[in-house]
Amino acid sequence: MKLLSALLTVVSFLHLAHAARIVRFIADDGKEYTGDAILANGSFDASQSTSARLIDGDVLGNFTITNNVKRIRKLLSPLSPERTRSVRCVGFNYVAHAEQSSHPIPDFPILFFKPWTALSDPGTIVPITPGYQNQTNFTSQMDYEAELVVVIKKRAFNISEDEALDHVLGYAVGNDVSHRGWQVDRGGEPQPQYSMGKDADGWAPWGPALVTTDVIPDPQTLHLFARKNGELKQNATTADMIFGVKQLVSFFSMGITLLPGDIIFTGTPEGVQFGLPNPFWLTDGDVVQVGLSGIGTITNTYSFTDGRNSVFSL
Amino acid sequence: MKLLSALLTVVSFLHLAHAARIVRFIADDGKEYTGDAILANGSFDASQSTSARLIDGDVLGNFTITNNVKRIRKLLSPLSPERTRSVRCVGFNYVAHAEQSSHPIPDFPILFFKPWTALSDPGTIVPITPGYQNQTNFTSQMDYEAELVVVIKKRAFNISEDEALDHVLGYAVGNDVSHRGWQVDRGGEPQPQYSMGKDADGWAPWGPALVTTDVIPDPQTLHLFARKNGELKQNATTADMIFGVKQLVSFFSMGITLLPGDIIFTGTPEGVQFGLPNPFWLTDGDVVQVGLSGIGTITNTYSFTDGRNSVFSL
Repeated sequence: MKLLSALLTVVSFLHLAHAARIVRFIADDGKEYTGDAILANGSFDASQSTSARLIDGDVLGNFTITNNVKRIRKLLSPLSPERTRSVRCVGFNYVAHAEQSSHPIPDFPILFFKPWTALSDPGTIVPITPGYQNQTNFTSQMDYEAELVVVIKKRAFNISEDEALDHVLGYAVGNDVSHRGWQVDRGGEPQPQYSMGKDADGWAPWGPALVTTDVIPDPQTLHLFARKNGELKQNATTADMIFGVKQLVSFFSMGITLLPGDIIFTGTPEGVQFGLPNPFWLTDGDVVQVGLSGIGTITNTYSFTDGRNSVFSL
Repeated sequence: MKLLSALLTVVSFLHLAHAARIVRFIADDGKEYTGDAILANGSFDASQSTSARLIDGDVLGNFTITNNVKRIRKLLSPLSPERTRSVRCVGFNYVAHAEQSSHPIPDFPILFFKPWTALSDPGTIVPITPGYQNQTNFTSQMDYEAELVVVIKKRAFNISEDEALDHVLGYAVGNDVSHRGWQVDRGGEPQPQYSMGKDADGWAPWGPALVTTDVIPDPQTLHLFARKNGELKQNATTADMIFGVKQLVSFFSMGITLLPGDIIFTGTPEGVQFGLPNPFWLTDGDVVQVGLSGIGTITNTYSFTDGRNSVFSL
């Protein structure tokens, strides 16, 4: 009985260790830590958290949550960008967004990539360098895309939909920052490839926490939204995704190895500027907040920069 | 004068150290080495080399060529795949290929990505797992694309065309293995994203050597070719690239940080099966050789596999 009880304690402890709202942050001492966010006033939004219990170990491997609490001075993206090798993105994965863009409902997930160098922090700027600013006869068509973000924890190759969630560490919210001019008009008609309109440094902020699958067993029930300068622009549910997380992970592992730390931006719902009759493209100083119920929000300011310095610091 | 002479010797030595045909290989002792290929019988093709002078240091940083010679048992890709973070690919970058595919001549480079997990060795198989094999009402449209491959040696951000080659380590030849069904028909009409038809494990073999810019000062003068089961299928010159290496590197650094080890597949010329009135798609056992004058050839066999095991070994 003693042995059984000890065993149960260990099992329960290991289980608990993986129910976490993983945040990476700079603490009061100026050092970087990874922790489990302590939620403020019952809010689910880790961007409002002022402290976290430090995590021991590797969140992509084995980890435990300690009782050592640190104050959060500044939130970073939940994983350091160099932990991610590939960032997959999905196009037209909500019916109403496809309809808004006059795009047929896809039969298979539409896959494109952002480079990992686009990954950035909640609260940081979204840099718009000269090549993406207004030019003669070419408008700076900067847009936002609120998206459910998936992080892989375990190598996946040719896995079924039933196995898919065993390979997922958890979820966050991200902004798939897009320049519609480079994405479409300059992307190579009649089959533009989206990457040049998607992949500049700092164009994939995500966070505020990486909430594990133990906390969110079903990712297809979340409220997803975006605000531009405080005004609600996207307001949808992940229940309306055409291809859910299980299908995407299974599909993207078809003859392909997904690795721990790989990230999937799962597509945006209706309400982006692209496809509106009179779009208001984002400009210097515009603030975009994207959020997911049960996970939290991130808030980033679009900023014109002269392009002399990379924001990518690794 | 003695000091000047010594200085010149050092400068000349440093210079020489960077003129190399970099090969990574398994030697007779079963260990992996990186070396400077010793060409066989005056051939430029490092795939015919039987030995190499070992390289000291890091080919992405500072390195020197030693007089320590090892026999080559098996060639690997010139860089280990984990040295590469991003693999950029260019669509429709030769006029005759665009015309063959009924695609307009692009005004800007068309960018898409392969994941780094696609990178593989000269001489290895190209795996075709069940999702890419014939299915009911869906043909396994496997194709080849001979391409000039560029490797970045120095971080690049918003650089000009004049500066671009200072950021390039050298060149190799690669096969941008493509499944036209997943690339186009199932890629999401009317703007299919190419990645699902491009990114399976082992679908980016490259090599045989990474030939530095000191050996090839002008990459726009090379003969590029492909053979299917010995028959010449692509036969072109890199002089016909719409966007040359300088333009591609400058363009892709627009607000974006390129990193040492990043790879660019610069697009394929005419002669692929895609766009032919009666294409012969590649099947189990077909052998494709792609080559570049001054650099060499790689030869890979397309192979049906059951998809139970990843070929990606890192």
